[in-house]
Formats: sequence, C-alpha cells, structure tokens
Amino acid sequence: MMRLATPGFLRFAQAPVLEKTFGGGEANVAVSLVNYGLSADFVTRLPKNDMGQAAINELRGLGVGTGHIVRAGDRIGIYFLETGASQRASKVTYDRAHSAISEIQPGEVDWAAAFKGARWFHWTGITPALSDNAAAVVEEACKAAKAQGLTVSTDLNFRKKLWSKEKAGKVMGNLMQYVDVCIANEEDAESVFGIHGAEVTSGKIEHAQYESVARQLTERFGFKQVAITLRESYSASHNGWSAMLWTDGKAYFSRKYDLNVIDRVGGGDSFGGGLIYASLRGDEPQKAINFAVAASALKHTICGDYNRVTLEEVEALAKGDGSGRVQR
Amino acid sequence: MMRLATPGFLRFAQAPVLEKTFGGGEANVAVSLVNYGLSADFVTRLPKNDMGQAAINELRGLGVGTGHIVRAGDRIGIYFLETGASQRASKVTYDRAHSAISEIQPGEVDWAAAFKGARWFHWTGITPALSDNAAAVVEEACKAAKAQGLTVSTDLNFRKKLWSKEKAGKVMGNLMQYVDVCIANEEDAESVFGIHGAEVTSGKIEHAQYESVARQLTERFGFKQVAITLRESYSASHNGWSAMLWTDGKAYFSRKYDLNVIDRVGGGDSFGGGLIYASLRGDEPQKAINFAVAASALKHTICGDYNRVTLEEVEALAKGDGSGRVQR
Amino acid sequence: MMRLATPGFLRFAQAPVLEKTFGGGEANVAVSLVNYGLSADFVTRLPKNDMGQAAINELRGLGVGTGHIVRAGDRIGIYFLETGASQRASKVTYDRAHSAISEIQPGEVDWAAAFKGARWFHWTGITPALSDNAAAVVEEACKAAKAQGLTVSTDLNFRKKLWSKEKAGKVMGNLMQYVDVCIANEEDAESVFGIHGAEVTSGKIEHAQYESVARQLTERFGFKQVAITLRESYSASHNGWSAMLWTDGKAYFSRKYDLNVIDRVGGGDSFGGGLIYASLRGDEPQKAINFAVAASALKHTICGDYNRVTLEEVEALAKGDGSGRVQR
Amino acid sequence: MMRLATPGFLRFAQAPVLEKTFGGGEANVAVSLVNYGLSADFVTRLPKNDMGQAAINELRGLGVGTGHIVRAGDRIGIYFLETGASQRASKVTYDRAHSAISEIQPGEVDWAAAFKGARWFHWTGITPALSDNAAAVVEEACKAAKAQGLTVSTDLNFRKKLWSKEKAGKVMGNLMQYVDVCIANEEDAESVFGIHGAEVTSGKIEHAQYESVARQLTERFGFKQVAITLRESYSASHNGWSAMLWTDGKAYFSRKYDLNVIDRVGGGDSFGGGLIYASLRGDEPQKAINFAVAASALKHTICGDYNRVTLEEVEALAKGDGSGRVQR
Amino acid sequence: MMRLATPGFLRFAQAPVLEKTFGGGEANVAVSLVNYGLSADFVTRLPKNDMGQAAINELRGLGVGTGHIVRAGDRIGIYFLETGASQRASKVTYDRAHSAISEIQPGEVDWAAAFKGARWFHWTGITPALSDNAAAVVEEACKAAKAQGLTVSTDLNFRKKLWSKEKAGKVMGNLMQYVDVCIANEEDAESVFGIHGAEVTSGKIEHAQYESVARQLTERFGFKQVAITLRESYSASHNGWSAMLWTDGKAYFSRKYDLNVIDRVGGGDSFGGGLIYASLRGDEPQKAINFAVAASALKHTICGDYNRVTLEEVEALAKGDGSGRVQR
Amino acid sequence: MMRLATPGFLRFAQAPVLEKTFGGGEANVAVSLVNYGLSADFVTRLPKNDMGQAAINELRGLGVGTGHIVRAGDRIGIYFLETGASQRASKVTYDRAHSAISEIQPGEVDWAAAFKGARWFHWTGITPALSDNAAAVVEEACKAAKAQGLTVSTDLNFRKKLWSKEKAGKVMGNLMQYVDVCIANEEDAESVFGIHGAEVTSGKIEHAQYESVARQLTERFGFKQVAITLRESYSASHNGWSAMLWTDGKAYFSRKYDLNVIDRVGGGDSFGGGLIYASLRGDEPQKAINFAVAASALKHTICGDYNRVTLEEVEALAKGDGSGRVQR
Repeated sequence: MMRLATPGFLRFAQAPVLEKTFGGGEANVAVSLVNYGLSADFVTRLPKNDMGQAAINELRGLGVGTGHIVRAGDRIGIYFLETGASQRASKVTYDRAHSAISEIQPGEVDWAAAFKGARWFHWTGITPALSDNAAAVVEEACKAAKAQGLTVSTDLNFRKKLWSKEKAGKVMGNLMQYVDVCIANEEDAESVFGIHGAEVTSGKIEHAQYESVARQLTERFGFKQVAITLRESYSASHNGWSAMLWTDGKAYFSRKYDLNVIDRVGGGDSFGGGLIYASLRGDEPQKAINFAVAASALKHTICGDYNRVTLEEVEALAKGDGSGRVQR
Repeated sequence: MMRLATPGFLRFAQAPVLEKTFGGGEANVAVSLVNYGLSADFVTRLPKNDMGQAAINELRGLGVGTGHIVRAGDRIGIYFLETGASQRASKVTYDRAHSAISEIQPGEVDWAAAFKGARWFHWTGITPALSDNAAAVVEEACKAAKAQGLTVSTDLNFRKKLWSKEKAGKVMGNLMQYVDVCIANEEDAESVFGIHGAEVTSGKIEHAQYESVARQLTERFGFKQVAITLRESYSASHNGWSAMLWTDGKAYFSRKYDLNVIDRVGGGDSFGGGLIYASLRGDEPQKAINFAVAASALKHTICGDYNRVTLEEVEALAKGDGSGRVQR
Repeated sequence: MMRLATPGFLRFAQAPVLEKTFGGGEANVAVSLVNYGLSADFVTRLPKNDMGQAAINELRGLGVGTGHIVRAGDRIGIYFLETGASQRASKVTYDRAHSAISEIQPGEVDWAAAFKGARWFHWTGITPALSDNAAAVVEEACKAAKAQGLTVSTDLNFRKKLWSKEKAGKVMGNLMQYVDVCIANEEDAESVFGIHGAEVTSGKIEHAQYESVARQLTERFGFKQVAITLRESYSASHNGWSAMLWTDGKAYFSRKYDLNVIDRVGGGDSFGGGLIYASLRGDEPQKAINFAVAASALKHTICGDYNRVTLEEVEALAKGDGSGRVQR
Repeated sequence: MMRLATPGFLRFAQAPVLEKTFGGGEANVAVSLVNYGLSADFVTRLPKNDMGQAAINELRGLGVGTGHIVRAGDRIGIYFLETGASQRASKVTYDRAHSAISEIQPGEVDWAAAFKGARWFHWTGITPALSDNAAAVVEEACKAAKAQGLTVSTDLNFRKKLWSKEKAGKVMGNLMQYVDVCIANEEDAESVFGIHGAEVTSGKIEHAQYESVARQLTERFGFKQVAITLRESYSASHNGWSAMLWTDGKAYFSRKYDLNVIDRVGGGDSFGGGLIYASLRGDEPQKAINFAVAASALKHTICGDYNRVTLEEVEALAKGDGSGRVQR
Repeated sequence: MMRLATPGFLRFAQAPVLEKTFGGGEANVAVSLVNYGLSADFVTRLPKNDMGQAAINELRGLGVGTGHIVRAGDRIGIYFLETGASQRASKVTYDRAHSAISEIQPGEVDWAAAFKGARWFHWTGITPALSDNAAAVVEEACKAAKAQGLTVSTDLNFRKKLWSKEKAGKVMGNLMQYVDVCIANEEDAESVFGIHGAEVTSGKIEHAQYESVARQLTERFGFKQVAITLRESYSASHNGWSAMLWTDGKAYFSRKYDLNVIDRVGGGDSFGGGLIYASLRGDEPQKAINFAVAASALKHTICGDYNRVTLEEVEALAKGDGSGRVQR
Repeated sequence: MMRLATPGFLRFAQAPVLEKTFGGGEANVAVSLVNYGLSADFVTRLPKNDMGQAAINELRGLGVGTGHIVRAGDRIGIYFLETGASQRASKVTYDRAHSAISEIQPGEVDWAAAFKGARWFHWTGITPALSDNAAAVVEEACKAAKAQGLTVSTDLNFRKKLWSKEKAGKVMGNLMQYVDVCIANEEDAESVFGIHGAEVTSGKIEHAQYESVARQLTERFGFKQVAITLRESYSASHNGWSAMLWTDGKAYFSRKYDLNVIDRVGGGDSFGGGLIYASLRGDEPQKAINFAVAASALKHTICGDYNRVTLEEVEALAKGDGSGRVQR
C-alpha cells in the first residue's frame, strides 16, 4: 500500500507535498524480521506500473523478498495520513477500493513455492476484509501453510471502514482454525469476536481483564499463543505501551514504556514482528514479550510504517537502556 | 497579515526558508466559524499586490467571504515567527507599520452592506492599536453593527509593542460601550483596564480570582458575557488550557486540557471562534465554554494561525475523546 | 567539523537529504561567547576546499574570529547525526579519521599571536583524542596560554570511539597540569580518571556524590573550579538538566530544568560557554552556575550544535521565566 | 483531479515526496477565465472527504465558483506526473478508475441552475471518456446549455488510455451536434474523427494541412469556429507553440513562440481559456488567437495545471514583450 | 535588503515557503570584491532586530566588513521575487518604504572612519532614490570619499517604482560631479539623463550606439570611464550578455556570452564588482571588461543576489573555457 | 560512493541540505543492466556502518545483486557535487581517501564465486587509481574473469585528482591485456595512453580523428571493440552527444542528440551500460551504438548517478521519438 502522509503535523488541505512511502500490515512485519537477520518474503499483488514497482523497490532495498509478488491489477491501494498531536488524533483516509490485492483471485499465487523452506506464515485481518476473493486467498494460503508445516499467526487488526463486525466475525471465525498464534490489539477481540476486554478509553488497564480475553480466545479457537498489546492513549503524543503474552495457560506481562509518539502507524505490526522473531529463535515467553514490546516501543519513534531498527537496538532497550543518551 | 515562520524550531538567522501563510485575530475567528458551517466575512484593507491577493486567496479557499475587503494601501502587515520549545518561548517580530489596514480611513468600508444579513460582529484589540484611524474605523463599525442589531464581541488582545497600557485603556474603554461579549486572555484585563486577575506566571490558577475579574469587567462595562481563557504555561511545549464563561452573574469553568503545543499562535482566536459559534447555535453556557475550549485545545495542534478543524472533531473532543487514537 | 544530520527523526537510510551545518566542542563554546557579546576566536585546521571554507563562513557569520585557522590538510571531519526520540537515542557516526585537525603538527599555529589580548583558553578532551599530534598541539597551546597568563579550561568530553580509557587517562592526566577550570559531564570523570561519580542510568542524582567527584578532581589536579553537568535522561525526548559548580571547597547547585529536548548535541558546550562568560564578567558562583545552566537549557531547544541565543534570553530564563509564553 | 507530481525532474521511484495540487481540463479553463476577470463555475462530482474538499478549497481560493459541485462518490481521480526534460517526455500515470466523476449519474447536477446567467459552457473530451454515465451527463449538460442559449465549446482532448478511437469517434461524433466552438490539439482530429492533419512528429508544420483539418471538421459538424494548437516538440524542454483559428471559412494564424518548457500540462486548457475569454469580450479573430496563444505560451512557464497569470501579463506578451526582462 | 523568493518558478500565491536571503546593489558588489580576495565593507543602516542581524551575519560570513553599519530604524527593506522563465519575466515586488536605510540621516555614518585605508567607493542609483535623506547621505559620502582620494563609481540603476525620471535626473545629475566611473545598464542612461542609447527590446545591439552613449555621458559629466552592459533578452531563460568599457575616448567590447539564465538578479552588480576588481589590480581596459563580463556571466548561474564565484572561476571563463565540463 | 549534492544550482556554502544518494562508475553500469532486465552484481567493499548499509539498500532496491560486497573498512568514499549551468561547470569534490574500497586487499573477494554464471565483467579506471591494492584487486578480478571465460570491459575514466598520467598509463597499460571492450570518453585515450584524439574544447568533432584513436588503441592492446563517446560541451546546460563504436576495423557512428542537461554525472556509465546490454543481446554494431547513445542521452535528464530508465524508454528514443511529448 502506498502511504501518502502530510509533513509534520499539517492537515491534508494545507500540505503542499505528501511524503511518499509504502507499508501495510504484513509488509511491516516482514521488514522487522529482515531487520533482525531473518529472511522473509512479502507476498501480495501489485500493479505493473511505477507505483507497484516503487513499492517493490522499497521492500527489496530493505532486504525483503519480493519474488512471489503477483504483478497484475489496475492500481495500488493508497492511504493518506495526517499525523496528529496532543488531543488531535492521527487520521487515516483509505483509497484502496479496487486495489490490485483486493482483486486477487485464488490460484494466482503459488503458495507451495512461496512457502518452500519457510517456517512461519503471518497474515492480518486487513487482507480478508478487502474482498471475498482476498479472504478466499487467505484461506488458500493458510491451508498451504499448514500442509507444509508452517506456524501460522494472525493479527486481528479490525478496520471498521472495511467491513462490519458481523462480517468480520464470520470470516475471521472461519480462518481461526488455521491459526497458531493470535495477536490482537486492544479492541479487536471485542469487535471481531464479541469477547469483552479492557476498557481502553479510560486509560486504566486491568491485567485480569486481559487474561480473561486471552483465555476466552484460546478456549474458542485453540490457539497456542495469544498476544495482546496494551496501549494507554493519554493523547496522540503520549502513550503507555506494554503487552501480554498468554501461553500454556499463563500470562506474561511486559514492562510498560512511556512513549513520546513520533509515528504510531505500524506499532502493532512491529510488535508482531518482534514476537515472531523471538518465537523463531526460541525465547522464553517473558523474554519474547519483552523483546516484542521493546521493538514496538522503538517503532513509535520511527517515521513511516516500517520499524527501521536493528536487533542490537531492540536488545539494548529490552535490557533496560531507555535513557535515550546519545550513542557516539 | 502575512505570517512568515521559520520551519521547525529554527531561529530566524538560521532558516533558509520562511513558511508563508496568513492570519490575524479577526481572520482566524472567521475561519473557525466557516469551518463549523456558518458563513462569515473578513473585512479589512489589503494592498492591490500579490501579497494582498494571496491573503484573499487563502481565506477565500477556506470559505471566508472576502467581498468587503478594501483593496488599497501600500503593503500588507507582516509578522515573523519563531516557534519555541521547552524553556524557549515562541518569538513574534512585527513588521506592520504602514500596513494597509493601519492606514484605513473612516468611510472606506460600507459597513451597512457588510453587515447585511449578519448576526454577529467580532473585532479584537489589535485593530484599534494599529493607529488612531483604525480605532476610529472600529468605532464606526461598532456603531453600524449595533444599529443593525448585531451582537458585538471583542477580544482585548493587548499587544504591548503596539501601544501603551494607558492608550489602550483609553481607546478600548471607549469602545467597550458597544460590546456585548468580552473575551480576554490572561493578562489583558489587567493591562488594558487595570483589573487585577490571576497570577499567571506561577502556573497556579485560582478560580475565585477569575470570577472576580469577570465581575469587575461586567460591572464596569455592562457586558452580557465575559469569557476568560486560563493558560498555564509550564513551558513553550506544555500548557494547561481551560476557560471560564461568566454570564448572568455565574461562572462556568471548562475542563482543563493538558496540551503538547504544536503551534499556539491563534489559540485565543480559536477560542473566540468556538464561543461565538456555540452562542449562535444557542448552547447553554456550560456546553458553550466546553465547545470553545475543546476547539482551542485542538488549535494548539494545528500549524498556522487558522484552526483547521471540523465541527465533528471539536464535538468529539468536547464529548471526551482526547485519547488521540488513530481515526481509520 | 561538518555535521550532516537527517531531517526530523529520520534514520540515515531513509533520509533523502542531510542537513548541513558545522560544529564541534570548541567552536560551539566560541559561538556562545560571541553571542553574549565577547570576542572569541576558534583556532583549528581546515582544508582549503569548499567544505573548509563553508565551515569558516558559518563561524565568521556568527561573529567568531577565524583569522588563526590553519588552512591545510585533506579533509574536514564529518559526523552524521540521527536525532532520537523517546526510547531511541540520538546516534552519532563519526567520519573524522584523517581530518585536517587530526593531522595538525606542532608549530603550525602561532599560539602567541592567537592568544594576544585574550583572557581565556578553552579546549575539550576530543582534540587530544584525535591523534598524538593533536594532543601535542593541545599541550603546546596550553603552555603558550599559561605563559601569557590566560585562564585555561577544559571539558573532559570522553569519546570512547576515539580512544581507550587508559590512553585518555594518561594523556589527559598530563594535560590537567595546565587547567584552571575543569568541566565534566556525567561519566567523564570516571571514564578518564577512574573517579567514581553518580549512578547516571538510574536517573537519580545524589548531590553528595557529585561533590565527592569534584573534591577528588580538585585534590588530584589542583583545579580552581570544577563544574559538573547533571543530566537525568528519562528518554531522548525528556531530560532533567542541572549542574554543580565546585569552587573554594564549596558546591553550588543550580536550579533543575525539565527539558523537552529538540537537539541535545552541543548541550555540554553551551554550558561551558555560559560558565566561561559568567566567569569572565565576574559572576558570583551561584549566579554563574545559574547562568550556565539556563544557557544550556535553552540550547536543548536549538537546532544545530551552536547555542543561538542572546544574552537577554539567557538572563530572562536564569531569572525565572521559563513559562515559554510568546514574546510579542 | 488530484495531481501528484514528483519534484524537479525526479522519477517516481526516487521521489521522497509528491507535490500535491489539483487540476483537470475543465477546471483549468475555469481558472483562466477567472484570472482574466470573468466569473466561472467548475461543475463536477467530488467525494465528501479531505481530498475532495482540498480540491474545492484550491479552486475556491482562485475564485472559481464551486457551488454546483456534487459531493458524492468514493474517491477523487488522481494522476501521477513525472516532468520530463530534453529527450525524456513527461509521463502521466492515471489512477482515476472509479473516481467520483466517472460514476456520476444523469440528474445529479441541476444544469438549469448551474447555467443560470451563464453565457458559455465548455467541456472536454476527457469527461465522456470516463464512463458511459459521464458521457450521458455531458450530453445532458449540452442540451441544457443549448436550451438556455449558451455557446458550447469543447476540446477534443483524446486520451488513448481512456477509450479507443472507435468509441471516442462514436460518442464524440454524437456530442458534436451541440458544439459551437471546437478546439483540437494536434492529433485529436485524426484520432477521434479520422481527419488527417499535420505530420506532427516531424516538427514541420504546414499551414495548409491545418486549414484542411479545420475545413473538414466544420463541414462535418457545422462548427462556428475551429481552433487548432500547433505544437512543435523539439524536445520535452523546447517547443514551438502557435495556433490557428478557423472562422467564417478563413484561417488566422498566431505568432509562434519559442518555449522553454517548465510545465506543459494544462497548456491546451490555457489556450482554451484564452480563446473563450477573447471570444466573450468580442475580440476580432486575429486578436483572439493571438491572445489565446500568448496566454498558453505563458502557461508553459507556470508550475501546476492552472494558468496563474493575469490579464495584464497576457496582454503584455500578446503585444510583443516576450523579452523576459525583470519587472520591477 | 531581505530577499524573499518563491522556490523554482512558483508564483507568489502558490509558494508555501519563501527562500530567505539578502542582497542589494552595493552589498552585491562588496561580496564580489571579497570573493576575489580584496577587503570591502558594506555601509548601510539596518534595524536592531533579527532581520537586520541576519543580514549582517550573511555578509559577515562571506567576509564583507560590517563594522560601519548603523544599527537603527524600524525595519529592513524587503523585496519579493518570482523567478521567471521563457516568455514570463521575473517579477520583483518591493516592500521597502520606511526601511531603515531610507530613513538614514546625514551624520549617522562616520564616513571618514569608514573610508580609512580604502581606495574605492561604490554606490548605486537605488540609494538616492529611496528618500531625500538618503540622497543627501550619498552626497555626504561622495564628498568624504573624494576628500580622502578614493575613486568613486556608481551604477545608475534606475528604478521607476522608486522615483520619476525627472527626479532621478535632477538628483543623479548633481551627484555625478563626484563620480569617476559610471556604470549603466541598457536603459539607464536614457531614463536618467535622456541620453538616447541602443534599442533594447529589439535584441539587436549596435556598437556605435553604445559608443555614442558613453561619449555623451563622458562629455556631460567628465567621467574617467563609462561601462555599459549589453543585455540581449531573447527570453527570461535565454540572454546574450556582453559589455563595453569606454575609456580615454576609446571603446572596448567584451566577448558575448550566450546565457542560460538561472538567476539574473544581481547580474549588473556582479559586473560592477568585476570591473572594480579589475581596475584595482590595474588590468588593461580590454582585460578588465573581459573579466567583468565573465564574472557577471557566471552570476547568471548563481542563485541569490551575490556572485558566489572565485577569482579562479572567473579567470578560467575569461580565458575561454565556457564549455561547462565537470570539474573533478 | 556516497554522493552529496547541493539542491538545484546552489553552491556548496549556500546549501542548507545536501541530497544524499549513491553512485560510482561500476555501480551505475550495474543499475543500467538491471533496468534493462539482466541480472548484475556490484562487487565492492563497504564499511559496516549506516552509510555502507544505505548504499547497499539503494542498490538492492534497484535490483542489483549485493551479495558479494565485502563489508569491512572504516568509511565510505564521498563525493560532493555542485550542479553547474550555462558557463559554470558542475564541480565534484572528492573525499574518498581511506575509503573502504581503496583499502581492499587481494583475496578479500571470492571472484570465482562472484563470477559464477556471469557472462561479463566491467570495471573502470577509477578503481585501480584509488590505491595500489585496489589496482592489484582489479588485476586479480580480471584474471579470474578471463579464467571463467567472461568478456571484460573497461571504461578508462581518467581522474587527474586520483593519479598522474604516468602512473595511470603504467597501471592501465598492464591491465589492458585482459580487456576485450574498451570504452573511453573524449580525453581519456590521450591522458592515459598518450594517444592523440579530437580537439574537444573547440566543440568541433572530426570523425576521422576518432577513428584514428580507436585504431591506435586496438593496435596497441588488441581490443575486440573500442567505443568512444563524443561530447560537444557548448555549456554546462547544453551538450551535443553521440558516440562511435569501432569493431572489426570499422567505425559506426550514432545519431547525435542535442541535450538539455539536467545531470550529466554518470553519463558515460550509462553509455557503458547500454553498450554492454546491446552486446549481450547480440545487437549489430550500428544498433548497439544507437542503443547505448540513446540510453545515455536519457541519462542526462535523470537526477543522480543511476540511469533510471526502462528498456522501453531507451528503445523508443533509439527508434527516433525524441519529441518529448507527454506520455499519457
């Protein structure tokens, strides 16, 4: 997806230029994994025009594999972003109807080839929300992934502008049968599956409530792990950020970071990327959730969707140095 | 007035470019009203050159009526702005001597025509400070407004670089006879009328002190309403922001917002715009002051003088959602 | 040194442009002194190319004397800067091996001429760290300064990428014999001289610990004054900032400022500049340390290495107005 | 239509930002007319989102009436532009499938109201190319215009990416019955109507060929006037530019300008705007074509789609001062 | 004077930022002289504010002496610049009424001190045009210069927006008694003194005509030298550029350069700077005029008022290498 | 190599930012080949820091293989670029002493692995000029290439700031034994081998002279092909551009393009890339030289070192469409 953001804190109508980058849930996760030293492919469908090519160039430059991207369709999805501050929230306007990925057809991707040698398949709830076709392709991919023995993870990522809660519940409910690791940000479990979680607008977060959500999700869908990010939005500029990992009937809570937010878009994806990385290298649950939260805390300081940080930077923060002293 | 601001936090001498926009007290209020769905005209005097035309284009683009602007004079007033941060205050350098508006003559504006169909006339204390002529034109306008039954509001807006307290007190004291609604920021009542208010540099705000100021103003000038904005300046980056509306002998205090300040120039004007809008649609005093403060809290996140927010955005904040969660 | 910084909070790889300015410890101090009304020369060695000339132009424009700069050598030292935020620290990458100054030879500067009419000579621990030659030139300069009766100050400024603690301890230990006023930031005393100071990563600062460091330094090297800056790094965006001046066996602690950090590079140098200025005009210790800390608090709001503030601005803050109210 | 252009001569993939403006055939003509002092409305269909609003703000700011724009639909059409130079042509990539205007329905615009008080209706061949609905709406508008006695003009503006020559010929052939003044750029007459014109890639232009095209068009469709722009593209940076007006069986050729091209997008529209203006004020044919060509020569020096020049500037060039001497 | 220019070829109303630099006839000449290795002071009057200081910083950075600048007055003069292209001329809008220099009083500058050690005094016709006071100060300076034995040069630089031909003729006519070297661009001799010169709008330049102008000027005012720049403006992007030096009753014509114009503001001043430099080092007339024209040819490729080129660069061009091959 | 260019036509000292990209002879050729659909690796040595990584990211993003790049050394080479115009040449200042590639050691690159599956090895005369080590590595690579049956090409690319003509002649003379295809720009043959060629500063190009150079080169070194680019530098903005291919004792001259130069750095490399591509696909000599010249003509319109054009764009120009008409 092409991201066209106003510079600084400008509103759309007053911006003479738009900052052009690319991003999107699954791509963001792939970039994180590559940054930590793994290899990862991003599989999607992009048009054969300059916009599709530029998206590929950016990912390829970051080291993400792009060899299984289908080049077809009319247009790349776009989202316009205004970065908020203080009491004014960031604003996303989607222009992705009729995007190449939304018109993907089952059979277009050779999933067996794409998954060859892979250990993990990650997708987010945004893709099946795009169209029935896209949902069918996600299921096709999930089946292929399971057939090849990959771990499958998802981020629920409910987007109310893309589909209704009812539709989401139905489609996602079906897809959960393939999922081993389920990531949810604060309101997703309730929006998609009607599972009541924490009261997020109050800013107060109760651990017990989050454990309850994870337990319910696990019971209903048989996940191996559930990870829930806990964002306390004091304002668009200032957030509390932590997470919980639920595994084997036990909850592991991370440290909570006090964030000056530079760019929170992609924050959840950077958490997913951190968690998958930690899982793949075999971290214990507490270490894994600490790594994932440190990674995503750093993301909030990075402009653009991708979490442009190194393994060493995440490790340093996870080990406790959040002082922000100049590195020189 | 043309606003030439250094980008980011640059000081004047180090800025290779200046960001060019337009603004000024009354224009800022007009933009707010139009943004909320009302129609509003900005009446002023601007030179027949590219700078005057660009000011008109910007306002016209935002929907403000510009049909009564007198095109004459030699130059547009300019102000140079450095945006401060932390312990460094924003710095405004005026270059508006001999501006077109400062050389306006009584009779140049057809106020009867300008006020046709209007319900409200708003002016600020900056205009009469520009020159004796300008003060005479303000009085001319006030008389016309009252003659046509408009509500008249003013924002005291004392600027010590434009005139002395003595001159301000005399000129403004006379003009207050036409005023129904008086808006004052923290130090204005004392500077212009010698009415002692809150101790603003301490950061502590005592409600009783503000009520006392409003009562004194009302008693002296017979205002229907007095609105006082209460800014607690912890630093250039961090303010507390609230306000009081005094009407019918009673004080209504708004919620207080904790602001990360992006651009506070125009903050008071956005309050005025919010208050006038709320009054015109008939809000109860508590609702009106809440709306005005929410509107102006948002202004502090908007670059430029104008409060580029929608009615929906102000309403959402006034109703309590200041969490800054991404809107998508 | 040429400073090439990414704009905003961009990481190096994603920045299409680099902001080009100049800076460096001693130059930064010189700019501060000139800004407060003194005359000051910056003495260094710069190549005869556009980069060396641009460095001179920038300093000359700010009023710093550049007449004793040696024009020779192959290249100007460069440092690349990424400005951090929140939990992500700013990152400096040096590219100054083989810089003109690092290849300076004793005898190239006519120190007697450079010091003619001067009262003070300031150098930092970065210069002797560049090369043995550079260290020899610093000693040469110190001797000349003492011979001409100048007060000599240093800022320890340990840079672990330039030399080891052992080498630093040896070279700096020798140079301390010429020093009257020693400035150290938090970890320098320990890194260079093994003198144990405050535990800085905890964020807690104990006055007694700092006094102990100053006493030990004074006892070992016979300094007239020791100044220690006390930075509490809550994050890259938020610091506490204060300092202690130790003189005549007594410690003077400044007020502590709560900083929203815009650019902290050069923060220590701006403290040094403030302290030297206050000393030269004969401030009492408490007033001097207050001035130096106010000056350096303001630096944290200024983009670039130099502290582009006026004497009036520092005085206003030192007197207590840190409210950040718009100056107009 | 939103125009997202790379800065300078950057290719899409290398541009960190895109310059955001708005434009499009009919809008461009409207801006020209307003710039010369007439009033003009732009009638289209734009979505109720920030992008649609920003398009309106820009036009409104320039003085174009926007009161008849229908606010509906999902998205604004976008075109991406790379500005070429020398042997590299400018490149336009359209992303306007499913735009609000392409999904307009007959009956959505109240043409009688839109045309009230108007004298002229101009449309271009791009609009009916968008969709059958759009073509139907153009016919609806033409009928209303004729019913209200307006002069109707069109610019053939064939875009091969939007429809085939066959489809264009059929649809446009039908619409020509309403047209009084037909404007064609070089290849349109042949592409749309199969009427053979000048050999344009050779750079040589034969007057007789152009007269023949105009005569054929007039004979087939009964136009009152035919205007043909004659572009000699030596390169993307260097063009010859002139035009012919055919009226009453006679051809009037303009002076030819030698253009250093800054931005040629909108060049044809600026010609149309100039011609309509000249016609409305009653210029003789030779004067009219001279005005229209001078206007459009200037457009090639203006960034963006709109011809941001004044009547005085066009007149001065039409009278012969193309020396480019500084105006001061 | 502060120069606020739109970027690229933008028109004023469409520019989001203005490029801030400084310039003006005499300052431009001073920069040229310093660039060639001479020392030069710029003497003017500038306000004690950030704008005045920034002007000084820029000049000081370039090496121009600023020690005799009077710091007083209310505002710095401003000019707004749109850079033209092809048939669209660059446009200058002055905003310099009431500038500090225009309000200068005789006696404010200590000319004897300013001229100490100097060999040459240059002024332009813009300064006496600003006000009667300014004209009086120019005469005061001329008298002091002659008293101290300096060569005095002037550039007629007629600006029709500043004064009438009649006024200019009278004031300048009087000042010519002090002038040794008179520089005129194409139309000045006629505008100021009614001396008929070349027909400049035709683009054809007749040598004989220029000789006649120089002879007349010399006869009337007794100049030692007259230099006339010969600009052939084919368009705003493309000029022919040459000059003639008249001395001892003989005309020396330079080579003519074919210029792609990047920025022609300051072109005449760069010629003056080159001529003064060549004269001061004792060049023969032919060599001097060649140097001055080469210098000013290069100026047309430099952004901003100042001719930022080195002596070596001018010499190389004057010797014939105008091929523009990359220097590496 | 990192390229830090001033924006627009700014001189180094006046540029607030530098445009950061990467480039260099062999990298530029690799990018061209990949753009035309071949696979190509760039083999070099880059430091393990952000600058080295960013260089890799950029190349990788464009599709160039980076798997054989050695990550070691202290710094990346830098070149600073000022883009010239008209009579002012572009200026390159190198800062590449001690760059990672200049300190490469024989044995660091596994050439057998790097050449596996390859058909062609291209290097330029810049690399052996960097250091004796680098020259030894080039010879090492040439031997490996010949051993594996690759065609070897070189571009003489003499840089007088890197080595003397004598040293170049000796080192290059030895390396020529491995070369099949020799590319030379205008002055290289003479500078490196003392072979007299065309008089390039005159602008006149004589075919016979070029043939003579090619014949001499072939006779001395036994090349299969010699290609000579023929640049006629009328100015920095305007060049004539053509080339000759000498093969089997016969010369093939391309069409000559009249170029408006946007960025000529990398022009020769884009010619080399085009020629290698055409050779690899088996073009006849005339077609090959036409393709190479068309490719490099387009390069002069592209910002940055790399020739960011597609095969289709080059083909279109080679077939004759240089009209620069908008592609839409």
